[in-house]
Amino acid sequence: MSILYYTLNNPVFTNFAFYSTASAVKMMSMSLLTVAKRLSKDVFANPEDLVLAKNKSAVTTTSDPDVERVRRNHLNDIENIIPFVLVGVFYVSTNPDRNTALWHFRIFFISRILHTLTYQLALPQPSRFISCAIGYAATLSMAARVLLTARP
Amino acid sequence: MSILYYTLNNPVFTNFAFYSTASAVKMMSMSLLTVAKRLSKDVFANPEDLVLAKNKSAVTTTSDPDVERVRRNHLNDIENIIPFVLVGVFYVSTNPDRNTALWHFRIFFISRILHTLTYQLALPQPSRFISCAIGYAATLSMAARVLLTARP
Amino acid sequence: MSILYYTLNNPVFTNFAFYSTASAVKMMSMSLLTVAKRLSKDVFANPEDLVLAKNKSAVTTTSDPDVERVRRNHLNDIENIIPFVLVGVFYVSTNPDRNTALWHFRIFFISRILHTLTYQLALPQPSRFISCAIGYAATLSMAARVLLTARP
Repeated sequence: MSILYYTLNNPVFTNFAFYSTASAVKMMSMSLLTVAKRLSKDVFANPEDLVLAKNKSAVTTTSDPDVERVRRNHLNDIENIIPFVLVGVFYVSTNPDRNTALWHFRIFFISRILHTLTYQLALPQPSRFISCAIGYAATLSMAARVLLTARP
Repeated sequence: MSILYYTLNNPVFTNFAFYSTASAVKMMSMSLLTVAKRLSKDVFANPEDLVLAKNKSAVTTTSDPDVERVRRNHLNDIENIIPFVLVGVFYVSTNPDRNTALWHFRIFFISRILHTLTYQLALPQPSRFISCAIGYAATLSMAARVLLTARP
Repeated sequence: MSILYYTLNNPVFTNFAFYSTASAVKMMSMSLLTVAKRLSKDVFANPEDLVLAKNKSAVTTTSDPDVERVRRNHLNDIENIIPFVLVGVFYVSTNPDRNTALWHFRIFFISRILHTLTYQLALPQPSRFISCAIGYAATLSMAARVLLTARP
């Protein structure tokens, strides 16, 4: 019979489930950070949101640098974390070596934490560029294995 | 032998497949709403799109409030519906109680319908905030179960 | 015993893994194109990125038409490729005909390549609209099968 890859009895899947979910929660935390920045700076995108403003003369804007920095970070998460999880689902089916797979997942997750820190602290470049590139390379490495294994 | 979780014989998976796909279709419907708003208001982002304009003196813009409201709604769907489906895939593998799982999926889907209604009708806040927060909490609850079950 | 759908022994899954991963890599390539455009035109969104500019008097901007064209293309990929992969995961579980499924996957992938070409070359409309609509229809067709098969 075939081996079951998509079960918590498979350590590759279990590790993938853990790091994917942790990455997804990290991505979701950007929504909370956006709300916190909007409320602290009275920066809102919709007229009906202005009832939440402390300063009653606040107007809508989509160009506050602090809020837009969080928004760009969130979009970069979407552009990188979602492909990691999608490609990873197929990568699990290629039966990779357990430790090789685990290091792909760990390195990706750590790269996204470092990317967020470098972005939100506005650390000197190329720190943010490098932290993003490392996670990007991990996803591409997984994608290469899938494309070679599943090629028609 | 291991139990198969990812099959339509598993009611948790079947319900997840239904509500995830319904949520994805709801998200995709925002593309149609964007096209409808662009055509009805002659609001286009690319110069080559202006041949579609009724008013031949229309110019490109990315700041029409009606179109941008739909775009923000679409992006909010991406930020919330995609993590729900990704985390849900792993949640299914944790063998949750059938009814507990079903209510997570139902509540999430209803919260996204309410979020879209409150956003597009510009209903008074905090109605949109609350409808978004309920779905966000459902996804976090599923993520917590995955992280506790699959932790290394 | 149940049939295993999520294994490379299932040609529907294997083809889906190949075309989904190829689509995800195509989507990720937009990040490289964005970086290339930013560096060649000295267009950066963050003050700390300006150390990378050739012209030392460059300022941050988020309104360069060439960079924003790539960004809109990337966001359109997110709005279309991610739903395709998410819905496709459930579609595989409905045991579709092997050839019907393969043509859904092929048509979707080709539509996204054509969409990118029409967008980046700014070809006359409705070429971009049609190439996007074809892939959108393929995803909706898969979603319809899932909703009908998995309905509660």
